[in-house]
Amino acid sequence: MFKDMLENVRKKCPLIHNITNYVTVNDCANIVLACGASPIMADDKDEVADITAICTGLNINIGTLNSRTIASMLIAGKRANELNHPVVLDPVGAGASKLRTDTAMQLLKEVKFSVIRGNISEIKTLASGSGTTKGVDADVADKVTEENLDEVVAFAKAFAEKIGAIIAITGSIDVVTDGKKAYCIRNGHPMMSSITGTGCQLSAMTAAFIAANPEHPLEAAAAAVSAMGYAGEVAYNRLSEMDGNATYRNYIIDAIYNMTPDMLEEGAKYEMR
Amino acid sequence: MFKDMLENVRKKCPLIHNITNYVTVNDCANIVLACGASPIMADDKDEVADITAICTGLNINIGTLNSRTIASMLIAGKRANELNHPVVLDPVGAGASKLRTDTAMQLLKEVKFSVIRGNISEIKTLASGSGTTKGVDADVADKVTEENLDEVVAFAKAFAEKIGAIIAITGSIDVVTDGKKAYCIRNGHPMMSSITGTGCQLSAMTAAFIAANPEHPLEAAAAAVSAMGYAGEVAYNRLSEMDGNATYRNYIIDAIYNMTPDMLEEGAKYEMR
Amino acid sequence: MFKDMLENVRKKCPLIHNITNYVTVNDCANIVLACGASPIMADDKDEVADITAICTGLNINIGTLNSRTIASMLIAGKRANELNHPVVLDPVGAGASKLRTDTAMQLLKEVKFSVIRGNISEIKTLASGSGTTKGVDADVADKVTEENLDEVVAFAKAFAEKIGAIIAITGSIDVVTDGKKAYCIRNGHPMMSSITGTGCQLSAMTAAFIAANPEHPLEAAAAAVSAMGYAGEVAYNRLSEMDGNATYRNYIIDAIYNMTPDMLEEGAKYEMR
Repeated sequence: MFKDMLENVRKKCPLIHNITNYVTVNDCANIVLACGASPIMADDKDEVADITAICTGLNINIGTLNSRTIASMLIAGKRANELNHPVVLDPVGAGASKLRTDTAMQLLKEVKFSVIRGNISEIKTLASGSGTTKGVDADVADKVTEENLDEVVAFAKAFAEKIGAIIAITGSIDVVTDGKKAYCIRNGHPMMSSITGTGCQLSAMTAAFIAANPEHPLEAAAAAVSAMGYAGEVAYNRLSEMDGNATYRNYIIDAIYNMTPDMLEEGAKYEMR
Repeated sequence: MFKDMLENVRKKCPLIHNITNYVTVNDCANIVLACGASPIMADDKDEVADITAICTGLNINIGTLNSRTIASMLIAGKRANELNHPVVLDPVGAGASKLRTDTAMQLLKEVKFSVIRGNISEIKTLASGSGTTKGVDADVADKVTEENLDEVVAFAKAFAEKIGAIIAITGSIDVVTDGKKAYCIRNGHPMMSSITGTGCQLSAMTAAFIAANPEHPLEAAAAAVSAMGYAGEVAYNRLSEMDGNATYRNYIIDAIYNMTPDMLEEGAKYEMR
Repeated sequence: MFKDMLENVRKKCPLIHNITNYVTVNDCANIVLACGASPIMADDKDEVADITAICTGLNINIGTLNSRTIASMLIAGKRANELNHPVVLDPVGAGASKLRTDTAMQLLKEVKFSVIRGNISEIKTLASGSGTTKGVDADVADKVTEENLDEVVAFAKAFAEKIGAIIAITGSIDVVTDGKKAYCIRNGHPMMSSITGTGCQLSAMTAAFIAANPEHPLEAAAAAVSAMGYAGEVAYNRLSEMDGNATYRNYIIDAIYNMTPDMLEEGAKYEMR
């Protein structure tokens, strides 16, 4: 199944509009290209409606948000909704500042999202409307483990149901659910947390996967999450002794570039709960 | 001839002011350094006139433009004109939104450019004042091929003549013309389109080449285009099986860093039409 | 001693707030991660006070400053001062435009900095209140050499004393002083100047080092400077014939990632003056 999801990205080459932070934007663009889609970045309120209209998917990431770009996120999100384009939200650092939490909540209120992808702390912040996120990483107290996995799945399903979006919580175990079915994904490598932007990259790639697979948004989102984690494994296995997080960053994008649908199908490690 | 163009960049180390998008800005800075010049990025309206004054060339790139930076582009462009500094325009995504098309047209009206570098769709948009660019890539219908090359050369020459600037249309075959002579350049590799920003990088590097070769702007621009394409070939030949677009990106900049004037002279593939 | 400084960063994993330029921001984030700390980038005036409050250190870098971010720098700096968080200033390009010089002077007036790190031209600009910086690189006339080292040390000590901050002047020889003691550091490699952002990366990493070593700010800053230079040496030694500045950039961050406290202790080359 995941195989078809990636195959469709490569076949359809969807154009993805990204309103994203300036920290990881280059990596987001390159991973979107690596998976076979095409990125465009535009964040001015006077052009985002035009840009979104020529795309087939929109990715909104609130890292390094500002008053100018918040307005653009709302305009683009609403326009994408009118056009029935899938929209991904990456609530980077929601809970770390009032502005981020408030912006995320406003976006949830005014824009219909297809997928919301974040770490457990960010998603908990969205579910409760407030939070104590430690920067842009998940709180240690919040980590998803084998012990609390059922609890996290139940929480994610309930929030997905309530909000009407696919929820993708990524961490050492990833949970992707539409409220009914949940994929628990065990791809990835701990070293991924030593690179900035693997989450941002995944959100951008998720927009590409769901744009190319409109009939299967849950499977498409799960396939994107699995592909990112699997790329982290492949890239880790390439590292030599002197390589560190900078080379690892490049190798992850390289692994997506070279990932065939069959490789993803074989490499994906998941169960349904 | 191309040999001397690169040699002069290395010898004179021109300082290049870039007002460019936040997606590929780091790569632009590193490729400017790789070719032997020195980059400075500044986009606030209260400093761009000062910054441009201490530089010898200006590169204006409209990717991720916004109301704040559009004003800065105009101020910097006019100041560079007063000082007789060469100015490059990269009309990224012109035709993809009204804001980009209008901004590109306004820049053409108020600033005198030495070189305009874009893909065929972007340049067609500038020539006609409107367009249907698919995002930031050239439309398939617009591709430059051996079949339509004469037509593209004639179009580029006419536009160069009309606008009074060197036109550099890059794609599978590149056309660089001042309206009289046209270089048709066959360097490059298709994989370059799987990286974000090879066009942006080339525009920044072109500013360095023309700043270092004020007597030979056409040859300088053609040499920059050829150098970028040749770097794409050299980098491609270095790739191993697991390398993808992220490593390729690094290798292209590395190839510019290691390119000697003699290597460029030998590697350049072009004809005049 | 330097050994303990790095060990504490790895042990405490301080969260560092960066208000920095969009050119080198990704590298700054990755090097902060590489040394064992955690970065967060946020520059909107409505969230910087919140963000700085959850961090333990702040890094202000004026590259690509604008009216919006200047206000944020002041708010964040003052908030960090109230909370007794260490604050680093990187006065990128001070002297290159009136806006940069004025902003740097205003920051010095309104915010108490723990460390100011720049090249000799930038630091001279701050000391005199005006300057003739050539872009973002040090003037040739300003280079720190064995011949003028005593003079530079005296200048740096006097400025550190006057301003009440540690001054870190980096170049072919680095000088780090609190006004009383000065570390003269001879790590590094000339090829580091062919990459954009080694200075910015060092400033971000310095914030991590001083945040993790509140009792030893001078030693922490000197250790960060030495670590960066040593990483430049290690990375240089890894380069193969076709590698250039892009690969070198990655290898430097990799070298920080793999640098153990013992390696730093052994690799550090300095004397006190």
